[in-house]
Amino acid sequence: MTITRESLVHEIDGEPFEHMVVADPKAGRRPGVLLFPNVLGAKDADFAYAQRVAELGYNLLVVDLYGQGKRTTRAEPDAARYMNALRDDRALLRDRVNAAHALLKRLDMVDADRTAAIGFCFGGLCVLDLARSGADIAGGVSFHGVYDPPPFPNAAISAKLLVCHGWDDPIAPPEATMGLARELTEAGCDWQIHAYGHTGHAFTDESAKMPDKGLAYSPAADRRSFQAMTNFLSELFD
Amino acid sequence: MTITRESLVHEIDGEPFEHMVVADPKAGRRPGVLLFPNVLGAKDADFAYAQRVAELGYNLLVVDLYGQGKRTTRAEPDAARYMNALRDDRALLRDRVNAAHALLKRLDMVDADRTAAIGFCFGGLCVLDLARSGADIAGGVSFHGVYDPPPFPNAAISAKLLVCHGWDDPIAPPEATMGLARELTEAGCDWQIHAYGHTGHAFTDESAKMPDKGLAYSPAADRRSFQAMTNFLSELFD
Repeated sequence: MTITRESLVHEIDGEPFEHMVVADPKAGRRPGVLLFPNVLGAKDADFAYAQRVAELGYNLLVVDLYGQGKRTTRAEPDAARYMNALRDDRALLRDRVNAAHALLKRLDMVDADRTAAIGFCFGGLCVLDLARSGADIAGGVSFHGVYDPPPFPNAAISAKLLVCHGWDDPIAPPEATMGLARELTEAGCDWQIHAYGHTGHAFTDESAKMPDKGLAYSPAADRRSFQAMTNFLSELFD
Repeated sequence: MTITRESLVHEIDGEPFEHMVVADPKAGRRPGVLLFPNVLGAKDADFAYAQRVAELGYNLLVVDLYGQGKRTTRAEPDAARYMNALRDDRALLRDRVNAAHALLKRLDMVDADRTAAIGFCFGGLCVLDLARSGADIAGGVSFHGVYDPPPFPNAAISAKLLVCHGWDDPIAPPEATMGLARELTEAGCDWQIHAYGHTGHAFTDESAKMPDKGLAYSPAADRRSFQAMTNFLSELFD
């Protein structure tokens, strides 16, 4: 199996967005998975994670929600500026994640009837908001995501959801996690929350090294959540 | 592989307890797993579950905590009488689960340095109390367990713990689950809680058919929790 990475520029209202297709071009049509990056935007770590998922038998679109060239690093003083613009406009975020899903479904190498989404941190919120919008993804996986619902009513959630959660995540304290459980229960969707003890935010991110701020890579939680996602995608598509 | 079932009567202070060894007698020493049954005591459904676990590569002891012949059925008016006697005496329960662990470790076919425990409903409490007592099990899995801690201080918990939980379980409402997360965090042990939405108590129990009381079999949660346990035991022993 040879997994390739190919940039895909797509315009919305004349504005370019630069996604990355991470796929096995010789495998024919496979289930398609959107990967929503964390606050910093699409980067090598996302392409590497997508590659691991592609090796499981899926073709991925790593999504650019900010616009071509709009990326940040943790070293910058305002690393969250592109994210915050979307966090503050959940209707726009909803439209962008749905545009990415439509794009995924149009890819020749993707079976449009078999799609899912995964995401990290802010990307976890993107997964949830895509599901909340009623998108016809079969399932979604949030890793150390953000749980507050949009300020407008949701559509019925048809997607199955798996939420991989660090119990000590300062961005999503226990009350927020309980709130998400209530919300998803009321929405009637098939959901799971996997909570990991002694685990903070960003547990899949090898570059996260701020344990004093509750933000740190965890090899165990990274491994367990990858396994849980693998099982979940198998349940959806095998 | 041929898995056999063999009754094993063991006495504590002259009182007989009838356990069941479910194992591959030709496989040599394998990691050993205690299986603690639900409120009704050791029965065919437990032996069948133990058989599925034995097929993964472990030798099991299905534990009798009540005493030989002391079994109940859901049809009985006081089906919980044997369980309640132990629920009311957590020191006695602690001693019984530890006696079962000592017995497991003495079995010729068990690698005494590689043991774990799983349990259902009241058996989930048994797993937690065994871990709380400081037993040297590598790990424990609670399925739709009972979470209230004993009325005495715990030892340090060295076991890894996986708690498979139905979010709508009336026996363990969200506050009890949060309490368990707090307790295990304070105990410093490696823990995970997998919560399943729209899932009540007894989700592994095909005979559980009282959804109006929040007690019902769930094929999805049964399958997912078995997969989670499989991954967990692999992490401990492979």
